[in-house]
Amino acid sequence: MLPLQLQPESHIPLYIQLRDQLRSLVDSGELRPGDRIPASRELAGQLGVHRTTIANAYADLESEGLIQGHVGRGTFICGDAPVRQISAAPRAMVASGLRWEALFADERGDDSLARLMPEVPENGIAFVTARPSGEYFPLEDFRRCCNAVLKTDGRRILQLGSSEGYEPLKSALVDLLRSEGTNVPLDQLLITDGCQQSLDLLCKAFLRPGDCVAIENPAYPGAIALLSAARVRCLAVPVETGAEGNGPLGMDVSSLESVLVQNRVKMILVTPDFQNPTGTTMPVASRRKLLDLAARHQIPVVEDHIYARLRLRGVNVPSLASMDRGGVVIQIDSFSKAAFPGLRVGWVVAPKNVIERLRMVKQITDLHTDQLAQATLAEFVKRGFLARHLARMKKVYLGCLNALEMALARHMPDDVTWTRPEGGMSVWVTLPPGVDAAELLIHVRERGVLFVPGRHFYLQGPQPNTLRLGFAGLDEKRIDRGVATLGQLLKAELRKRQHGARRFEPARVALV
Amino acid sequence: MLPLQLQPESHIPLYIQLRDQLRSLVDSGELRPGDRIPASRELAGQLGVHRTTIANAYADLESEGLIQGHVGRGTFICGDAPVRQISAAPRAMVASGLRWEALFADERGDDSLARLMPEVPENGIAFVTARPSGEYFPLEDFRRCCNAVLKTDGRRILQLGSSEGYEPLKSALVDLLRSEGTNVPLDQLLITDGCQQSLDLLCKAFLRPGDCVAIENPAYPGAIALLSAARVRCLAVPVETGAEGNGPLGMDVSSLESVLVQNRVKMILVTPDFQNPTGTTMPVASRRKLLDLAARHQIPVVEDHIYARLRLRGVNVPSLASMDRGGVVIQIDSFSKAAFPGLRVGWVVAPKNVIERLRMVKQITDLHTDQLAQATLAEFVKRGFLARHLARMKKVYLGCLNALEMALARHMPDDVTWTRPEGGMSVWVTLPPGVDAAELLIHVRERGVLFVPGRHFYLQGPQPNTLRLGFAGLDEKRIDRGVATLGQLLKAELRKRQHGARRFEPARVALV
Repeated sequence: MLPLQLQPESHIPLYIQLRDQLRSLVDSGELRPGDRIPASRELAGQLGVHRTTIANAYADLESEGLIQGHVGRGTFICGDAPVRQISAAPRAMVASGLRWEALFADERGDDSLARLMPEVPENGIAFVTARPSGEYFPLEDFRRCCNAVLKTDGRRILQLGSSEGYEPLKSALVDLLRSEGTNVPLDQLLITDGCQQSLDLLCKAFLRPGDCVAIENPAYPGAIALLSAARVRCLAVPVETGAEGNGPLGMDVSSLESVLVQNRVKMILVTPDFQNPTGTTMPVASRRKLLDLAARHQIPVVEDHIYARLRLRGVNVPSLASMDRGGVVIQIDSFSKAAFPGLRVGWVVAPKNVIERLRMVKQITDLHTDQLAQATLAEFVKRGFLARHLARMKKVYLGCLNALEMALARHMPDDVTWTRPEGGMSVWVTLPPGVDAAELLIHVRERGVLFVPGRHFYLQGPQPNTLRLGFAGLDEKRIDRGVATLGQLLKAELRKRQHGARRFEPARVALV
Repeated sequence: MLPLQLQPESHIPLYIQLRDQLRSLVDSGELRPGDRIPASRELAGQLGVHRTTIANAYADLESEGLIQGHVGRGTFICGDAPVRQISAAPRAMVASGLRWEALFADERGDDSLARLMPEVPENGIAFVTARPSGEYFPLEDFRRCCNAVLKTDGRRILQLGSSEGYEPLKSALVDLLRSEGTNVPLDQLLITDGCQQSLDLLCKAFLRPGDCVAIENPAYPGAIALLSAARVRCLAVPVETGAEGNGPLGMDVSSLESVLVQNRVKMILVTPDFQNPTGTTMPVASRRKLLDLAARHQIPVVEDHIYARLRLRGVNVPSLASMDRGGVVIQIDSFSKAAFPGLRVGWVVAPKNVIERLRMVKQITDLHTDQLAQATLAEFVKRGFLARHLARMKKVYLGCLNALEMALARHMPDDVTWTRPEGGMSVWVTLPPGVDAAELLIHVRERGVLFVPGRHFYLQGPQPNTLRLGFAGLDEKRIDRGVATLGQLLKAELRKRQHGARRFEPARVALV
């Protein structure tokens, strides 16, 4: 029997675990050319998983040329399997002399973030992104700003700059924040390459290997990946998504309290507004409780404010930073959800001594943030283009969100639930218990529809029956078509289950 | 007696150590308003340092309003010293509730990199930079490239991009490297935010706290600061600067060998061409020995190639990467010494599996590098503007280097020596033994001349009588004037010493 071990609790889909383990067996020589591998039904029985899981793994390996099926005989390891290595591009410059894999600082091999951004097929409907829609980028406005700053300040922009940020951008942000109701002095502001880098800098400034951070579960995978790589222990605090129909939404502050009582937590990381992936917003009472807890335990709260400017409906809730009386909040923010994520510019608002420490860390990390992007964005803000663009995009995204909700109501079976975000870019869908969104994805992908299975966002205890639908990049018609496909395949699967058939086969439905 | 402890071996100038320790005593309450502190002569005697050191520390503290001298009575801690804290800008948004200093992951308080980039006075002559001269930036060419890429590819550029880099830039770099004689496949290339970030990514991918890295001594302070912050042990390998007039220049490979034999070294970091700060170039025989050593010990060699395109005279020496038969070299490189350091774009060339690992690390660090900068630089390379600009700048810099060498020969006392770089941006000067460049700086700064004392570049065993002169940002006349000032003040000091006077007083010489 093959030495295979699948972990149902992992956020990595079972078929990928299986595929990768089989590939390793070939690479290590345990499986050799000509060896027969079990039929999918047989292996499914051995491993106690659905036969589709095996079939999907085999399909990937066959397309890689690693295995081949022979009618009536079975499936075999291919004779020319080692070609995979030999056929790699000749290393003109560098022979691979060292055993590099053994030299890496850790064994991180899982690239879950990359898998969240799969190739979108031509004419596909990809509910996968949490990024702004590119078709509305005000390119001409942007180009005018870019030209203007290069003309007036080109020499300074292109010269080595300051680690704290390009001064005109800092000033523009101070004005922007003041217009939004918060008064931030220049020395409480640091420019970064975006929220991902802000997290990296905070991690370097505050955390050591083994330290504990309390974080939402599910959460933004980029935060989990960053903290895990730094060998920081992430402690999961459940996010209430309203699926149970009661209690406040967002990070569950009572659970947070138990986590803080039981562990020496060094930082709390939270996205109170339109959390990715659930789209939930913490009510003001929870925010107050969270701040009280943090102040009592003397723990910094990192508020991820990246989606907050994308409120599409409902009433504004004050940010943690603006409610902070205990002086515990560090707020990270960015332009990239409002406009132009290809420019890597974000910022941190924090007490002056924290900013000074982060500035030092920033300096040794990458000296400073690109100044052409900073200068152009400063001009874009100052001329009022950002406000105008945001207003426009909020209309567009509200249209998308409405369309998505209508489509879900129209096409989804009764026992599917979803969150009702007041902003942001994604809706969190809970399928009936027992349905694996990762398996569903395999089938809808064949019809050109993509989404991200919920398991990728979980720190622990992944719910395989959840998924995230990002709506920001799509027009209303495609949203309806995509959700229709999703609903049809899901209903077909549920029918099969009702009829006792455990096998998941794509339903023969035409795209509407 | 005050609890003061100065470390002459530190790279931090004595007067700064003293100033900071006195400030801490006030902050901690050990020195209180009204307390008298010793006269400079008295304290100099107690601490066994020059009286100028005390005077400089006191001058800084006086300008901060922390101490005040009263004629005939002495020097006292000011009554309103605590005002320093109270008068800080009111924290409109964030009260400083947490004891943040206690929460930081380490006690790093020394910001030596920032001190390397002091404010340049109006009309000052600053030999401090290792950055390209901004006045020659081909701004119009740049702006044309920027407009062109925004017009043809704006929507892609401004959208979220790939962690490995913007494809057109990668292709342009492959072509550039091929034209320079190295054949690098696309998958052996990763775009980063510059060499500082490349080092950060390498550190994350390969090093754990406590690991050892062999590094030149003296070296680029940004590398030392980065590794120290990551709690990596830096092992110093001496750089031969030719001051002794014999042996090959650059990293001393025999010393490297002893370091490798005696320690479990995880990485060798070396700048073979025009090393910062010494300007030295390793001869080909040393490079071969280094590569053999690394291959024998199975240690990755990180080749900092950032200055290599700035060869101003002499014969090209092949890069470590191009000589690498053992497959041990990772080369880091950047545009920022050739042009536009305000754009943060660099790259890494390495075996495919190293690049893939670094790409994953890059992704969790800041997702990807700014795409407007990448696209514009790609266009700038493709149109031949980079080659043209480089050719022009090499002429300009050669003029600067020649002027600097002539000025040194003209104005420096006989027992001063300096390196003869064949490229790069800086010359390394060794003053007569016993002269402290940090003290000399205090005096030449009063005349508007700046340089960086050599001690800032040392990992250990700082030579206080060394200094770095960066020549790239200055015109030939100012170079001569600056070196003349340096020479005059140095000669005055040496005369004083000869006459037995140990006290350093600025000579009354007019600027020539």
